Amino acid sequence: MKNRIITISREFGSGGRTVGREVAAKLGIPCYDHELIDKIAEESGFTREYIAERGEYASHGSWLASALSDRDYYGHSNQDELWKFQRKVILELAEKGPCVIVGRCADYILKDKQDCLSVFIHSDLEKRAQRIVEQYGERPETPQKRLKDKDKRRAAYYQFYTERKWGAVQNYDITLNSGSLGIEKCVEILASLY
Amino acid sequence: MKNRIITISREFGSGGRTVGREVAAKLGIPCYDHELIDKIAEESGFTREYIAERGEYASHGSWLASALSDRDYYGHSNQDELWKFQRKVILELAEKGPCVIVGRCADYILKDKQDCLSVFIHSDLEKRAQRIVEQYGERPETPQKRLKDKDKRRAAYYQFYTERKWGAVQNYDITLNSGSLGIEKCVEILASLY
Repeated sequence: MKNRIITISREFGSGGRTVGREVAAKLGIPCYDHELIDKIAEESGFTREYIAERGEYASHGSWLASALSDRDYYGHSNQDELWKFQRKVILELAEKGPCVIVGRCADYILKDKQDCLSVFIHSDLEKRAQRIVEQYGERPETPQKRLKDKDKRRAAYYQFYTERKWGAVQNYDITLNSGSLGIEKCVEILASLY
Repeated sequence: MKNRIITISREFGSGGRTVGREVAAKLGIPCYDHELIDKIAEESGFTREYIAERGEYASHGSWLASALSDRDYYGHSNQDELWKFQRKVILELAEKGPCVIVGRCADYILKDKQDCLSVFIHSDLEKRAQRIVEQYGERPETPQKRLKDKDKRRAAYYQFYTERKWGAVQNYDITLNSGSLGIEKCVEILASLY
């Protein structure tokens, strides 16, 4: 029963999603990444695009602007609603059976589960920049700018909903530098911990 | 030639030293921990006690007091002298052959070496408190207080001499929670990365 669930948090462009998919394939268990977005869409009625963006990222602009944006008279926002659906879906999936869950604060949502291995994947900026150009193609802004913006908004989202610091070593059972260790070695280590 | 050197940074009481010793024994390479202090003592003339304390810990009290303490007219301190000896000994050992080096900012000192695996070992406060009472016995202050004081002074020392944040995930190839994974599993993973 140990480490029945693996949650993977990752810096943008670190290959954390690929690590998750490959670990799941190796272990013969499902990996929830895009599938998570589909399930949340079904339950919540939010569009896939809204969920992909607002279920993991603070909005652009300042922290304060982000915290206050889209709030109604009572201080609620659509993003808060989405958080509740996201949390519910992740808890349900974790009850259903062994799996890998990528992103969406699953490490925090499942932090009290004994059989959960919490993982963070990171890499240096240069290797990540190279990876996102290969994976997602060229864009008008530099890859470094995209990376920094994505990480900053992921960190802000995480901090807002979990009151923990994204990427702080204490939140994880293991953190891996995919740039120096290689994707394959990361997969091997995580599979060995299952 | 990959990962010929393993540097282990660790939270106080996490068992990082034990992990280092056991990995080294498994790989049949030397582990420098207390031995490092002996070598630095030989080269520098400082006492073992001074090196143990001031080669890894900022002094008690505020950060500013620590940064300014013991400095002469030119702004130099014995601690700076010790840092230079420590740095020299660590660089020499790393040149000499494969080894495990525990603590003393070795991760930073060897950061430009390609064949160096940088590791951080941590654990939750409760497990560490239990461990230090078992290992080092009861003391007048609570184990939690001792842990926090030690970690705080290690972090301050590290930050002062390296200008990096101690325990920040980006400084390491791998971080391991020895409390949740167990010492034995940590040893196994690190040996597999050699």
